[in-house]
Amino acid sequence: MPSVMPKIAAVMGPTLAFLLDPEMTRMGADPSVANFAIGNPQEMPLPELVTALRDVLEPKDKNWFAYKLNEDSSQRTIAAGIQSRLGIAVRPEDVMVTNGGFGAIATSLRTLAGPGDEVIFISPPWFFYEALILAVGADPVRVGLRPPAFDLDSEAIAAAITARTAAVLVNTPHNPTGRVYPPEQLQGLADVLAEASRRHGRTIHLLSDEPYNRILFDGRTFTSPAAHYPATLLLYSYAKTLLAPGMRIGYIALAPDMPDAPALRDSLMLAQIMTGFAFANADLQYALPRLEKLSIDMAALQRRRDRLVPALLEMGYQTSLPEGTFYTMVRSPIPDDLEFSRLLRRHGVLVLPGTVVEVPGWFRISLTANDEMVERGIEGFRLALDAAATRT
Amino acid sequence: MPSVMPKIAAVMGPTLAFLLDPEMTRMGADPSVANFAIGNPQEMPLPELVTALRDVLEPKDKNWFAYKLNEDSSQRTIAAGIQSRLGIAVRPEDVMVTNGGFGAIATSLRTLAGPGDEVIFISPPWFFYEALILAVGADPVRVGLRPPAFDLDSEAIAAAITARTAAVLVNTPHNPTGRVYPPEQLQGLADVLAEASRRHGRTIHLLSDEPYNRILFDGRTFTSPAAHYPATLLLYSYAKTLLAPGMRIGYIALAPDMPDAPALRDSLMLAQIMTGFAFANADLQYALPRLEKLSIDMAALQRRRDRLVPALLEMGYQTSLPEGTFYTMVRSPIPDDLEFSRLLRRHGVLVLPGTVVEVPGWFRISLTANDEMVERGIEGFRLALDAAATRT
Repeated sequence: MPSVMPKIAAVMGPTLAFLLDPEMTRMGADPSVANFAIGNPQEMPLPELVTALRDVLEPKDKNWFAYKLNEDSSQRTIAAGIQSRLGIAVRPEDVMVTNGGFGAIATSLRTLAGPGDEVIFISPPWFFYEALILAVGADPVRVGLRPPAFDLDSEAIAAAITARTAAVLVNTPHNPTGRVYPPEQLQGLADVLAEASRRHGRTIHLLSDEPYNRILFDGRTFTSPAAHYPATLLLYSYAKTLLAPGMRIGYIALAPDMPDAPALRDSLMLAQIMTGFAFANADLQYALPRLEKLSIDMAALQRRRDRLVPALLEMGYQTSLPEGTFYTMVRSPIPDDLEFSRLLRRHGVLVLPGTVVEVPGWFRISLTANDEMVERGIEGFRLALDAAATRT
Repeated sequence: MPSVMPKIAAVMGPTLAFLLDPEMTRMGADPSVANFAIGNPQEMPLPELVTALRDVLEPKDKNWFAYKLNEDSSQRTIAAGIQSRLGIAVRPEDVMVTNGGFGAIATSLRTLAGPGDEVIFISPPWFFYEALILAVGADPVRVGLRPPAFDLDSEAIAAAITARTAAVLVNTPHNPTGRVYPPEQLQGLADVLAEASRRHGRTIHLLSDEPYNRILFDGRTFTSPAAHYPATLLLYSYAKTLLAPGMRIGYIALAPDMPDAPALRDSLMLAQIMTGFAFANADLQYALPRLEKLSIDMAALQRRRDRLVPALLEMGYQTSLPEGTFYTMVRSPIPDDLEFSRLLRRHGVLVLPGTVVEVPGWFRISLTANDEMVERGIEGFRLALDAAATRT
């Protein structure tokens, strides 16, 4: 069958084998394990989230649970939030209210690209970028970040652009490195895209995947690529600030000077329908004004970063110091990160091997672990390091 | 841009122009209008729905709102429901828990078909079938039902099958005609598909879209195509029995003798991820055991059918008598159903012109209107009929 699924299955194989590994599931459910593998909650949900969801269930009219699309009230709430947090004057009608970040990315890709097109994505990538590009029939083109700081490499992106390039997909704050691209780098990228769009006579759209744009450390502020490049689609998910990815809400917002915004808007709305009706449920749209203001405890997240990273450095690990996101990258003390991840499991510590996200020789730890897991984890990291040392 | 969206926009244009028409929206919100246009609720939501959703919000563990996939408990609930209602022994692991019927259809099509494939669908169709087939890059092939009873036309389907046919998409109880295909017709279709699969050396899958399979009149029972043809994917949405399409939950269930079920299952799960994470939200999955048992008042629906249809017949309209679904088809007293629908609007009655669903010369009325709307509507239908008569 010419369905694209076999190709996607091949690309996703290693990731799914890791994510759906029964041992992972078993260990993830074991409270004695220090789980740093995935950005899933390790503490009880925010009580304000529960209250906000409960308060909107009482129906106010007969259409309370009728079909919901990109509802005016949600669009206004989101546009106001972007204005106040990012200083970008998004028009409410330019906001699509999606069922989370997946829906936002899949809908945008479907709208902008198809067979014969190329979409550039950044490596190390989020698990699903390459497959989602394949899913719309386009060809994924991988461009690496520039080590050691994982900077955006505008020159490499410029070199990867062809007449077939429909879009460039970037992610900031960046999972898994924790890097937040500075404005100069975003401007560099914008210049490259503007020049290439002129040269090829087609608008190259920028997809800015920003689910972590409020998950920032050390009092940092965030600059969105949407502030630098007019043809930017800002993609967002509430799953990080709420740590509730099982209740799906996110959005696509067009930068204010988007070329051909009305046509793009119509096409995105239709693409949402085609992407399995990718609109947020009624309850989440009603609760949105309260959800928009809610966040997990950022001070606690930073406290965990500031406990874990120095402890790991002191033992002799090499680590990144994330500027944002839930993640810290740690160099595997032996070259084979899959092997070292297995060794860590034997000491009660779950991590994400870097190989799964195209950073072999490293592993990723998630700061969504709770404080007690951090303390137990530090001990596990120490024992695994000793074991690796005696083995060589 | 080679995105498939322009082609989809062309196909969907007339439907979207109707559904998103500002006058439709305005009239739909006007309580003095008798709204028979769309299967949206015209009464307050079921109180038991609200209670069921509220009761599950209190978190029982830290993963309460974590990522939800096809959860074991939901799969078991759905399989048990299918067993008790339809007598089909679906395995729980063969159930995918989707974000509604759209997600079920889009996910199934993505799994089974791609560029170069053909998917046969039935006309008159649901609004979105043709576009959803185009969205996976496959070619839609239309086969009409056999008038006057809108029977399934197995011979016409047999004639439409080619070596490129990946799947056949049927809908029973049928929207918009209200027809419920009898077992003999389903067996006829199964024989055709089995023979054609053998002849072409590929399994032709049957997608059975059954969101109305509990919306039956006159004490009818329902037979699913899944009981007749092993390679059937049973697609369901809770949006009809709950009349709450803004809270999205539905499913795909594989018939028990599905060929290569384990591989198909894996591919469907991955296709759900690619379809914008097309899993039902956490709250709906927790509430599912209670939602499975809930239904709008079928006696009231039948009462409205039994008030409206005789009244329309008595005035001189020609109508169908639906066996199931929310819908009755009525012949337009003038050939142009769009024109007559506008005339009805002037008398405070909203209907769906048949042209939008490939039945020109007819219009569709939805029985989800409330009793008061039915009484006002009857008067509007009479006045519009008089106006049409004096005009000719």
